Amino acid sequence: MEDYHKPDQQTIQVLRNIANRLRINCIKATTTAGNGHPTSCCSVAEIMSVLFFHTMRYRPEDPRHYNNDRFLLSKGHAAPALYSMWVETGFLKENEINHPNVCVCVCVCVCIYIYIYIYIYLQLPMNYRVFCLMGDGEMSEGSVWEAMSFASYYQLDNLVAILDINRLGQSDTSPLQHHVDKYYKRFEAFGWHAIIVDGHSVEELCKALSQPRHQPTAIIAKTIKGKGIPAAEDKQGWHAKPLPKDMAEMVAKDLQSRIMNSSKHLYPSAPTEDSPPVSLRNIRMPSAPSYKAGEKISTRKAYGMALAKLGRYYERVVALDGDTNNLTYSEIFKNEHPNRFVECYIAQQNMVSVAVGCAARDRNLVFASTLASFFTRTHDQLRMAAMSESNVKLCGSHCGLSNGEEGPSLMALEDLAMFRALPSSTIFYPSDGVSTEKATDLAATTKGLCYIRTSRHDCSIIYNSNEDFHVGQAKVVYQSKDDQVTVVAAGMMIHEALAAAEHLKKGIMRRVLTVEDHYYEGGLGEALSSVMVNEQGYNLHCLAVSHVPRSGKPHELLKIYGIDRDAIVQAVRKLMTSCN
Amino acid sequence: MEDYHKPDQQTIQVLRNIANRLRINCIKATTTAGNGHPTSCCSVAEIMSVLFFHTMRYRPEDPRHYNNDRFLLSKGHAAPALYSMWVETGFLKENEINHPNVCVCVCVCVCIYIYIYIYIYLQLPMNYRVFCLMGDGEMSEGSVWEAMSFASYYQLDNLVAILDINRLGQSDTSPLQHHVDKYYKRFEAFGWHAIIVDGHSVEELCKALSQPRHQPTAIIAKTIKGKGIPAAEDKQGWHAKPLPKDMAEMVAKDLQSRIMNSSKHLYPSAPTEDSPPVSLRNIRMPSAPSYKAGEKISTRKAYGMALAKLGRYYERVVALDGDTNNLTYSEIFKNEHPNRFVECYIAQQNMVSVAVGCAARDRNLVFASTLASFFTRTHDQLRMAAMSESNVKLCGSHCGLSNGEEGPSLMALEDLAMFRALPSSTIFYPSDGVSTEKATDLAATTKGLCYIRTSRHDCSIIYNSNEDFHVGQAKVVYQSKDDQVTVVAAGMMIHEALAAAEHLKKGIMRRVLTVEDHYYEGGLGEALSSVMVNEQGYNLHCLAVSHVPRSGKPHELLKIYGIDRDAIVQAVRKLMTSCN
Repeated sequence: MEDYHKPDQQTIQVLRNIANRLRINCIKATTTAGNGHPTSCCSVAEIMSVLFFHTMRYRPEDPRHYNNDRFLLSKGHAAPALYSMWVETGFLKENEINHPNVCVCVCVCVCIYIYIYIYIYLQLPMNYRVFCLMGDGEMSEGSVWEAMSFASYYQLDNLVAILDINRLGQSDTSPLQHHVDKYYKRFEAFGWHAIIVDGHSVEELCKALSQPRHQPTAIIAKTIKGKGIPAAEDKQGWHAKPLPKDMAEMVAKDLQSRIMNSSKHLYPSAPTEDSPPVSLRNIRMPSAPSYKAGEKISTRKAYGMALAKLGRYYERVVALDGDTNNLTYSEIFKNEHPNRFVECYIAQQNMVSVAVGCAARDRNLVFASTLASFFTRTHDQLRMAAMSESNVKLCGSHCGLSNGEEGPSLMALEDLAMFRALPSSTIFYPSDGVSTEKATDLAATTKGLCYIRTSRHDCSIIYNSNEDFHVGQAKVVYQSKDDQVTVVAAGMMIHEALAAAEHLKKGIMRRVLTVEDHYYEGGLGEALSSVMVNEQGYNLHCLAVSHVPRSGKPHELLKIYGIDRDAIVQAVRKLMTSCN
Repeated sequence: MEDYHKPDQQTIQVLRNIANRLRINCIKATTTAGNGHPTSCCSVAEIMSVLFFHTMRYRPEDPRHYNNDRFLLSKGHAAPALYSMWVETGFLKENEINHPNVCVCVCVCVCIYIYIYIYIYLQLPMNYRVFCLMGDGEMSEGSVWEAMSFASYYQLDNLVAILDINRLGQSDTSPLQHHVDKYYKRFEAFGWHAIIVDGHSVEELCKALSQPRHQPTAIIAKTIKGKGIPAAEDKQGWHAKPLPKDMAEMVAKDLQSRIMNSSKHLYPSAPTEDSPPVSLRNIRMPSAPSYKAGEKISTRKAYGMALAKLGRYYERVVALDGDTNNLTYSEIFKNEHPNRFVECYIAQQNMVSVAVGCAARDRNLVFASTLASFFTRTHDQLRMAAMSESNVKLCGSHCGLSNGEEGPSLMALEDLAMFRALPSSTIFYPSDGVSTEKATDLAATTKGLCYIRTSRHDCSIIYNSNEDFHVGQAKVVYQSKDDQVTVVAAGMMIHEALAAAEHLKKGIMRRVLTVEDHYYEGGLGEALSSVMVNEQGYNLHCLAVSHVPRSGKPHELLKIYGIDRDAIVQAVRKLMTSCN
């Protein structure tokens, strides 16, 4: 306890005052809004007060500064408690959080943090610490335990989780209720240093949060949900219920009476200004791809090579993978830049969370890769990342039937539907080495969530190295003056379409065929349908996978599911006759 | 250890022989197929042998019989090891697993089990036990720890997890390598009885698996990946690599030499025949809905009432929820049928897994509900359920902008895209109490994965109680002889469309407008586009949500995002002028 300077009585009283003002503000704000979670705020009042005015070091006028300690409100329901702290520091005015729209918006703004438990160890020098406030309800979520394993494996000693064990969930008690000993055992077993405290004791919190750390630390705070609202304390039926107006006023008055005058003012400590500013602008591939016509390479390998190349020129390019680096070929990056590669093991949800955390505050350009099918595991993390305007780049390999040998569980045939429905996301589905390297380059410069879909098997180079690519632009890779049908395809299917074109040598381009290595729903065909539906005189036909595939060689599967060159030939011929 | 009858030396030798024959079969099968994971099979040889010929009670001629002990191969890579056991029991012939297609198909067939860790405690009488064989790689997955918490919370004493701790993953070592003590601590902390064994010792396995159980048990088996293949034992670089033909033959010969002749034959013990046969056929709503015109009810509440009603007549109807039963209204079912309600807490992935497990072997008709947005967490479990032809029924409440107050993180605006891309799934998006009850009824009788999408707020009854509903059929809820535009909508948007129709009283029905409480991508508009794209002379316009919404009252949000009655009126007017 060498670092621990016990706060004096006056400081303790001021911290208590801040906690009670937080309660008053949260009760008022939620009652005004007619929505929100006052009881979830009241249980964390002392925790917030101690964190913001005793423990954390930050610039109160610039909460997002990169040298600040980080605070993550995983327990999103307590959003008004966070905003109340910004009132205390002067960053917000009280009336700004007492407006209904602001109050409910609060829940939105903090969602950015919900899934970011971990800031990685790469940002050296790094004196800042990360404090994550969590609820007991979410301790049932598996993703939390993925993060716990990760943090202890990498010995993230600057990470502190504070658990608000308030016993009550949405509909009932939480499974472990107030058994803090059980939480203690779980954290210790997962390699964390755990400390049990009374979550309403400012003294205990100050002490626990001042302990020197050599491993990730969990502060297990036993609290009372609704603390300070006598009728609601530790009672079911009060979750997500603002207090009626008269009750709110009565409770606020009572809480106000507990606030003792003090001449003392507390100010947060200044952060250590040790991290350099970073700019991710202008990160782009320094030279054109060097593939030659006739060369063969899988798009997954071309991704690995492109990423390693980018990493060679920019030290803020970071790669993550989930025990699949020898499949996605992120291993090429790993071998070249081992200090900027993070192995996340088979915990894809946490991998995406780490990526989002690592990309936060524009400090790193993060690429995370695994098998495309595994990204379905991370759908919730992805939607939160998209909603939070995270700048993460993702690569899913072994897409669709290109992964035939491994069977349907490992074939991604729904990933386009999933990524297309993520707001502001950009999808790249390259078809050769050149377009893959260009896609990696474009992903680096395209703001927001980007997804690169790569295939397992080698395929020929189609594009010239100097070909110019733009987001949202389609390329004509083969044409003749007698064309009657346009085939729209991407990735591996381009090669099938080109092979089909060889069979078909024969003029109004009014027929369109899409071919995709994906289910019909939500993919390329539907995307084109939605654009073409009102175009008169066109005829669109779509080829896609209609059933759960069995396992087999990709070319066998393309045939069975009717998306190979022969199927394209047949579909084109049918389109030609049906339209004449 | 009262129950433990130590096996005699002859039995031990026969169990070892079975293990080595398993190795030979798996090596041969994967080499023949040119694909598969022989080293992952070799580490579990003794475990499989002891489970199938010493521990488990089942009918070898009828592996899916409901009185059998259950075996779940969570570690799907070891599929050939399972099939090898069926050769030993006589259920399959050796040449059936030495054919390339069968061998790879194997990986598919067992995937059905990957996510089903838990069979629930409801199926009383229930003497059968559940044995789940897991790999160490997957111990990084959060969903595993959701299952662990669940099993100890409900004290599932018939559940045994066997962990194959073979130290090596896909690309590298697993994070905890051979530290079985760390696994031991984690399982104990999660409320399991843990036992460490040498996974290649038939004696130790027989003993550990014979222990009486009063809580879920974890057998932590320290093993060698590739055991029996000298060049690959405990070596990296051998994951997912079949042996070259000559090497396979040499290793098989060596393994064959370790198999000692024995006159003894082992047969699995017969199961306790204590469970009755069950039929889920003919489970359907016994009477029409009793809603009256003008009545108002939210579709979420109508779902809860319909489910409780169904449960009143059929005791095999089971409901699950994830700490949201007072939001989804599954609480109505819970209150009426507490013994058939399973609270799964905030662990949605596990909730879907429990549902799939509970529905397996057609023993229960399972409905699982939570907020629609939370189902994105379970995307991978859903795709595996769909692929495995599971008969689970899911209900997601608070869909789209109907959940405006809670902010975008809790608005499901991508669930249609997700569920549409699940093969063979059926989506119900009811718009009033009657259609919700009918949807619940149809979900009960429609085979496969069904999803019911419900809204938060009350809305009027639209349909007559005797209205007949069919899957895939659209209803005309309002029409006149002068109609010029067809508005296609579902759920809450039907009510907006009806209100818009009131504003528009004025024929060739060639214009179609879709309105949906969902993003543009993958939803209703795209579904209709893909159907209408080749219909000449039609004009389709789609209204949907184009940006991440902020929080607010639903009617405010419908206006802001342009899908309310006014927007419909405007869009219809525009369609009318643009087409004339």
